[in-house]
Amino acid sequence: MPTAAPALTLAPSPEIPRRVPIALDARSYDILIGRGLLDDPASYEGLPRSALAAIVSNTTVAPLYAERLAAQLQGRHRRIETVVLPDGEDHKDWATMNRIFDALLAAQGDRKTVIYALGGGVVGDMSGFAAACYMRGVPFVQVPTTLLAQVDSSVGGKTAVNHPLGKNMIGAFYQPLRVLADLATLDTLPDREIRAGLAEVIKYGPIADADFFDWIERNLDALLARDPAALAHAVQRSCEIKAWVVSQDERESGLRAILNYGHTFGHAIEAGLGFGVWLHGEAVGCGMVLAAELSARLGLLDAGAAARIVRLIERAGLPVIAPVLGGAEDWLAHMRVDKKAEGGEIRFVLIDGLGRACMRPAPDALVTEVIAARSDPAVDAAARAAQPA
Amino acid sequence: MPTAAPALTLAPSPEIPRRVPIALDARSYDILIGRGLLDDPASYEGLPRSALAAIVSNTTVAPLYAERLAAQLQGRHRRIETVVLPDGEDHKDWATMNRIFDALLAAQGDRKTVIYALGGGVVGDMSGFAAACYMRGVPFVQVPTTLLAQVDSSVGGKTAVNHPLGKNMIGAFYQPLRVLADLATLDTLPDREIRAGLAEVIKYGPIADADFFDWIERNLDALLARDPAALAHAVQRSCEIKAWVVSQDERESGLRAILNYGHTFGHAIEAGLGFGVWLHGEAVGCGMVLAAELSARLGLLDAGAAARIVRLIERAGLPVIAPVLGGAEDWLAHMRVDKKAEGGEIRFVLIDGLGRACMRPAPDALVTEVIAARSDPAVDAAARAAQPA
Repeated sequence: MPTAAPALTLAPSPEIPRRVPIALDARSYDILIGRGLLDDPASYEGLPRSALAAIVSNTTVAPLYAERLAAQLQGRHRRIETVVLPDGEDHKDWATMNRIFDALLAAQGDRKTVIYALGGGVVGDMSGFAAACYMRGVPFVQVPTTLLAQVDSSVGGKTAVNHPLGKNMIGAFYQPLRVLADLATLDTLPDREIRAGLAEVIKYGPIADADFFDWIERNLDALLARDPAALAHAVQRSCEIKAWVVSQDERESGLRAILNYGHTFGHAIEAGLGFGVWLHGEAVGCGMVLAAELSARLGLLDAGAAARIVRLIERAGLPVIAPVLGGAEDWLAHMRVDKKAEGGEIRFVLIDGLGRACMRPAPDALVTEVIAARSDPAVDAAARAAQPA
Repeated sequence: MPTAAPALTLAPSPEIPRRVPIALDARSYDILIGRGLLDDPASYEGLPRSALAAIVSNTTVAPLYAERLAAQLQGRHRRIETVVLPDGEDHKDWATMNRIFDALLAAQGDRKTVIYALGGGVVGDMSGFAAACYMRGVPFVQVPTTLLAQVDSSVGGKTAVNHPLGKNMIGAFYQPLRVLADLATLDTLPDREIRAGLAEVIKYGPIADADFFDWIERNLDALLARDPAALAHAVQRSCEIKAWVVSQDERESGLRAILNYGHTFGHAIEAGLGFGVWLHGEAVGCGMVLAAELSARLGLLDAGAAARIVRLIERAGLPVIAPVLGGAEDWLAHMRVDKKAEGGEIRFVLIDGLGRACMRPAPDALVTEVIAARSDPAVDAAARAAQPA
């Protein structure tokens, strides 16, 4: 597995758009990163014009940004339809997808209809999958408005909905035409979502770039305080690493799986607690702690480096103690339906020294030990208590 | 638009497998055509081995062939799961797709699970779409058991389910690894389905090959009598023409749309009567009559050639008089949601001389005239009467 991510391409300020290209032959596209992109006509240059554009968003984001996006699309499409979905991971299902299809069909959307995904990871994943399926594929543009979506989910073409038996089980690899990451949209993001997004930013350090890990350690307080220059750097570097990985392995037949560091344990937490109880980034943060611990017990990672990972996740305000769920067997059952599993064998993304990831199975006994050492029934109780009745 | 289909590659007998390659770079594959392929281990050579294979079929076809297919897969997969769907176009929906996903997840299907689609067009379209979506894509093999599926729907990677507002509205372009067209499976096919399949065979003449049209005129009685040599020739020539078209335009951005000759009117009939009341091939047969008539009124096709098309469809036992549905506006509304429509403008596949197709819009008034001349309320009444209460 290649160990070196490409060098950083630094742009001078958060205001000036930065361009990170994703090289995928005919499906290549750019990620644009900068403050104020949403309202800048230049952001839309070269995107297709057609009779209908559909803005897909949710009840939280649409009131903030849908009109501003529609104003920019006005000259490019004769009609603009806005589809507002209920907010949250527990609506990431086929029934919600159908609301998009119903709206497209009612508005006589055709194969040239352009879908704009305006929102976080859930909106992006569902809009992208709807674009992949509607009339067997229509063009779409990602306009991510959460940190998590800007650094991870909007980039790389993974789209999906959840199935009751597993997260993101039903989906497609389908690339957008462009990603517009307007850093100004992060201003309205709740702190909890900034922290959840930082989980995916932190992820890129251990798997691909030890220097970036050092940088995050030094700049975490600035990131939590939403310092514009710090956020611009974090988003750009995250996208560069993701672009490098995705360009080499679009359909996750090898290298790309390293982007799932923390996700195997994380998915078990999300499925076990019920989707949406913890934010995806929170579950991934805790999952990275467990995977770091497992890497250490397998002798891949020294104890000091594992402790640095745990400490950084903790400083970001993310959970570092997991729920117990239904016990070890329950954890293992959730992880066996992970998409990286093969023939029922769970394959973990592990850290083989800071900045380098590998994939391998691990003995059930060792996995169970790690979960036992790092979980607490009080976490389950708190999660249950935090849920609306 | 290219006008010449490639020359026919003749194989000596229906028993010896014929191979029609579909050239799509990394997604290239072969259609194998012959009697007895299902039970011949050579048919499966080179297909992937893995822990799980899922045979997706329906209540009609599974009892006839699922065990024989499973016997061939036994040595290639540790476990074989058979998923039996309800039969018929009215089950071609997302709820039925979910039965496939539920079975795959319950059987711990992973990304290496191979899906075998055993049945007609509905089974093939749904299994293929399930393969496209499950864990964002798993390998699949088409084993078409109807004439319609062997000459059309199993070839070329179009997969889909219906939406209440339109047929095949939700789907994907997703190519199989191989198509195994065992002509012996046609022995058990009801006459009505042979006739419906012949609609798609006949289609290839007017759009691409006047000589093939002549051949069908001369051999229609042999085809209706299921003469093995005639069927082998019809399936092979149909697949060759389809392979030629699909290889040039996989995602239907141009040429491929000619394969939808008769389908714009046909979809309106299916949607208007209710999916499944007429077989797809019956609706397409009648649709080709209307489209031939429209071609003649637009001055593209001489009256003699149009009459030959109508006569051949009639001799095949297919309907040549359409239902009235809810009147002209109802027809137009159904056709405006056709996937070939753009910005609400209906685009028809028309015949520009036997053996040559073109795509263009037509004045609503002229379309309405054609429908009025070629429809009869008695057809609607008969369709209603034939439906189970």
